Amino acid sequence: MKKLQSIKDEDNFNHQGAVELLVFNFLLILTILTIWLFKNHRFRFLHETGGAMVYGLIMGLILRYATAPSDFEIGNVYDCDKLKAGLPTLLVNITNQVYEYQYRREISQLNVNAHQGNAMLQKMTFDPSIFFNVLLPPIIFHAGYSLKKRHFFRNLGSILTYAFLGTAVSCIVIGLIMYGFVKALVHVNQLNSGDFHFTDCLLFGSFMSATDPVTVLAIFHELHVDTDLYTLLFGESVLNDAVAIVLTHSISIYSPKENPNIFDAAAFFQSVGNFLGIFAGSFSMGAAYAIVTHLTKFTKLCEFPMLETGLFFLLSWSAFLSAEAAGLTGIVAVLFCGVTQAHYTYNNLSEDSKMRTKQLFEFMNFLAENVIFCYMGLALFTFQNHIFNALFIFGAFVAVFVARACNIYPISFILNLGRKQKIPKNFQHMMMFSGLRGAIAFALAIRDTESQPKQMMFTTTLLIVFFTVWVLGGGTTSMLAANNLDKSTTKAESAWLFRIWYGFDHKYLKPILTHAGPPLTTTLPEWCNPVARLLTSPRAYEEQLKDEDGDFIVNNDELTLNYDASDHFPVPTQNRTESSHSAGKENIHDGDLGLGGCELHSKPASGQSEFASSA
Amino acid sequence: MKKLQSIKDEDNFNHQGAVELLVFNFLLILTILTIWLFKNHRFRFLHETGGAMVYGLIMGLILRYATAPSDFEIGNVYDCDKLKAGLPTLLVNITNQVYEYQYRREISQLNVNAHQGNAMLQKMTFDPSIFFNVLLPPIIFHAGYSLKKRHFFRNLGSILTYAFLGTAVSCIVIGLIMYGFVKALVHVNQLNSGDFHFTDCLLFGSFMSATDPVTVLAIFHELHVDTDLYTLLFGESVLNDAVAIVLTHSISIYSPKENPNIFDAAAFFQSVGNFLGIFAGSFSMGAAYAIVTHLTKFTKLCEFPMLETGLFFLLSWSAFLSAEAAGLTGIVAVLFCGVTQAHYTYNNLSEDSKMRTKQLFEFMNFLAENVIFCYMGLALFTFQNHIFNALFIFGAFVAVFVARACNIYPISFILNLGRKQKIPKNFQHMMMFSGLRGAIAFALAIRDTESQPKQMMFTTTLLIVFFTVWVLGGGTTSMLAANNLDKSTTKAESAWLFRIWYGFDHKYLKPILTHAGPPLTTTLPEWCNPVARLLTSPRAYEEQLKDEDGDFIVNNDELTLNYDASDHFPVPTQNRTESSHSAGKENIHDGDLGLGGCELHSKPASGQSEFASSA
Repeated sequence: MKKLQSIKDEDNFNHQGAVELLVFNFLLILTILTIWLFKNHRFRFLHETGGAMVYGLIMGLILRYATAPSDFEIGNVYDCDKLKAGLPTLLVNITNQVYEYQYRREISQLNVNAHQGNAMLQKMTFDPSIFFNVLLPPIIFHAGYSLKKRHFFRNLGSILTYAFLGTAVSCIVIGLIMYGFVKALVHVNQLNSGDFHFTDCLLFGSFMSATDPVTVLAIFHELHVDTDLYTLLFGESVLNDAVAIVLTHSISIYSPKENPNIFDAAAFFQSVGNFLGIFAGSFSMGAAYAIVTHLTKFTKLCEFPMLETGLFFLLSWSAFLSAEAAGLTGIVAVLFCGVTQAHYTYNNLSEDSKMRTKQLFEFMNFLAENVIFCYMGLALFTFQNHIFNALFIFGAFVAVFVARACNIYPISFILNLGRKQKIPKNFQHMMMFSGLRGAIAFALAIRDTESQPKQMMFTTTLLIVFFTVWVLGGGTTSMLAANNLDKSTTKAESAWLFRIWYGFDHKYLKPILTHAGPPLTTTLPEWCNPVARLLTSPRAYEEQLKDEDGDFIVNNDELTLNYDASDHFPVPTQNRTESSHSAGKENIHDGDLGLGGCELHSKPASGQSEFASSA
Repeated sequence: MKKLQSIKDEDNFNHQGAVELLVFNFLLILTILTIWLFKNHRFRFLHETGGAMVYGLIMGLILRYATAPSDFEIGNVYDCDKLKAGLPTLLVNITNQVYEYQYRREISQLNVNAHQGNAMLQKMTFDPSIFFNVLLPPIIFHAGYSLKKRHFFRNLGSILTYAFLGTAVSCIVIGLIMYGFVKALVHVNQLNSGDFHFTDCLLFGSFMSATDPVTVLAIFHELHVDTDLYTLLFGESVLNDAVAIVLTHSISIYSPKENPNIFDAAAFFQSVGNFLGIFAGSFSMGAAYAIVTHLTKFTKLCEFPMLETGLFFLLSWSAFLSAEAAGLTGIVAVLFCGVTQAHYTYNNLSEDSKMRTKQLFEFMNFLAENVIFCYMGLALFTFQNHIFNALFIFGAFVAVFVARACNIYPISFILNLGRKQKIPKNFQHMMMFSGLRGAIAFALAIRDTESQPKQMMFTTTLLIVFFTVWVLGGGTTSMLAANNLDKSTTKAESAWLFRIWYGFDHKYLKPILTHAGPPLTTTLPEWCNPVARLLTSPRAYEEQLKDEDGDFIVNNDELTLNYDASDHFPVPTQNRTESSHSAGKENIHDGDLGLGGCELHSKPASGQSEFASSA
């Protein structure tokens, strides 16, 4: 016993998960160096996320074949003598089945199914809850926080149509096609007939409908592609992530009373109700947290930028966690929290905090993204329960591309009936082409890999992510050139939805929530004056003297694409008094991942400096 | 089976650790708001870390007594019917003992001992490896990164003596006193004679010798206490953490051949050898990683501040992880990595990255620290295996204070024999008083809570941390006033160790590793010229024309305490060409936690702007 204790002590002082974290660090360092090399030589055929996946893949290969499993890790370990070597076992009793399980105190441990195999590989497999609670929120929040607001709201109708209708179409089309392939698999006896239900196919459809904005948009951004196309794509892919997640959630709780293959109207409508309820609930949760953060308007917290940044960070993360804890969808909550924070709270922050939060979220987004993509590469070799089925995979590829086409072209056609500024054909081709699958699809698929169909779906998802990121992501530059989109511009779309929203926002919401906008005393009816005076910031009156309303609309954001990316500090802090006046203008440099700069130095900082001089 | 699957799916979509993270978020938000309140009203009787502990304590109380354990969480769960409610169990077979174990996929799960008790409490208990691998490194790195270099090196001899000799004295004194109390406990039959060895007492001594710099120094910093006292204390408490950790490691692997109570000379010398080996190895590992980071000098990575920051962050963390993986002490590695990074790499970073890294590490330090202190508060009520033994606790309090006295007074006396600038009595009283125990002591104690003596030691450690942080931390302001230290200054200590080091560093290391310092061609012998020319940065020649050597020593760091804390942006980025010249000066604002600013606005930014104008 004493001996064992001392071995344990020693083990306590040896790594404990350090090796696994080190592997990830090493992969990330390699990725960063590669990105730098690529940037320096203007390579664009492989995006950083693609590079991260390549390194992950190689590392997975090494871990799989170079680390020979020890005695221990193969056979059944019931003999207590062997336990002295330091790897105690757990007998896992879950629903009458006794698995045998290797036990070490690690974050990445509890992959219950993995009752055989290399311990190192198991350790590299981390808990899906880490994806959902730690890695995804910063990515999604950053997407929301850096949304190009004016362009977004101008295209709101189209984006919502793509996101809701398009994702539903995509999900159903993939579900139907996959169901056909599943029937074929049953026919050739590669699958038992009871294993794979139509709901499973729909679930796969909902995973696969989440498109990834990262890769394509990074390239778009570097190439200064037309802002409206950028915003349409960005908005679509960000919102369809949210929709796809809620859809997955709704489908997974869809429980028809009898045969799961027969359509059950009651259960279906319940699912639709669930979908709407979850979406609305999550949206409200995100917005509510953002509004709580706005209350910083009434504090003098801006004198302590670190506290302000901390509060901002924690409240935004809490939006995610509260939604999850309440059984809603955290991703949707944190997305809308990000959008709302950028729109209102950002204006209340001190200059220092504006920069701190922007850089912090940028950095977390960068790290989280690359960790996920490295991990995807790793998972191909380290995940223990892959089921490769050629026909299923082929079917999935067909389904994904058909579904994307059924999503983009018909919906664009319908939208063009209503839009003054049509979405041209080359835009549509580009949107069709940009349907990469990434982190969200992967995270949804890895969330449940207990049963055989789920494992098959996970393996297929992984391969589709690889293909789309490497092939489609790699081909973006040439595709842009082929569609003559690399330098095009379109006229502004001034939608009725935008105008109504703008009026309401500018007159009421902004003055209540920020220091910007006209005083509430001028916009609210007279009998509201006592309340209005209470809610209006003293600064608003000063602003009023300087701002012309029409002027404000034009200057409302500086989100032109050709700003100088090196100019990270909108207003130098020495003129602090000046900058507090200009706080009413929103100066977020959206979409900038802090990676550019080098090739832009020579250009005049048009967008930014124009804005600064107008202050 | 199908039913269970759908329950599982639902469970997958419900929180998964979200609630636990939310609790921490909520505590941190409360803490931030409290800090803000305190700062605003200039309260200094309770430091933020003390506040975080109070909130943690309250939350722990609520979790303990307000959340009633369910059916499940009390009894033995062998009945498989009950499993449908969603909490599968694991039968844990470790060394012939079958514990029964509640299983959920959570980060915070694997507390094997907790075979009874409330599941929520268990979930709030997180894995010690998270402390060590994730929460401690940023705190320690930040300490190293923000060390006041000139003052540190000037007092290097004294600091090393306190850290090495002082910690050893403290550890042995605590060990001896505790051994006395343990004997007494055995005498009154509160303890079996075989349970508690002398090595366990020494282990407790080594935990308790790690003093925490955070609380006291934050107050010192705000009050502008004399820099030499600040540096002595800071250096001492940072280094003694490192020494205490290595000491703990060495003691835990001390394995005398026969009776563990009898002194075994061979085993003792082996432990001393281990100590020296581990310390030197960890030191080298940290320095090696820092030197790898220096190689960024030869890249043009500074054009991409995000990549640079990422690389810097990852390499520093890798220093920690590599040391842990190699069986060394990561904390020591990351500490010296931080010191070396601040001294050399910092000079090679772009202006943007300097700020980004500083703010990032500040922020991570802030969060990690508050999480740990919240967790300490929580642990008093949520940890399941506390053993409160009044005599042991009383003994520990006595031992800790006697040991601190035996450390500070005799060593100060010895040091004063050699120092030109004596360490005055009131300094010594203050150092005696500042021996708070914090995060490191707690992390060391929680690392192993398997056996009864370890649990007793853990409980006692927790109480000592509470007492010292609240009572001593709270009394710092009045203690400073009582010792007339709140505005005192001493003359500079110019030690021989400092002069030798300075010469070597300035002539050889700086030119090799950074863009600063005289060209190597002038400092190396002539036959080294080819190598020297290769290694010298072109900027060094330019610098040479401007810098007088003596001048450089004076301007070498701007680490005056009364700089303007709001001035976070040393050189605005618009004058990028200018700033690249001044990169040779080290402008770290050490110790600044980004919290101040408000009360300092009115003062002239003497340290900082003097420095800027000299560039």
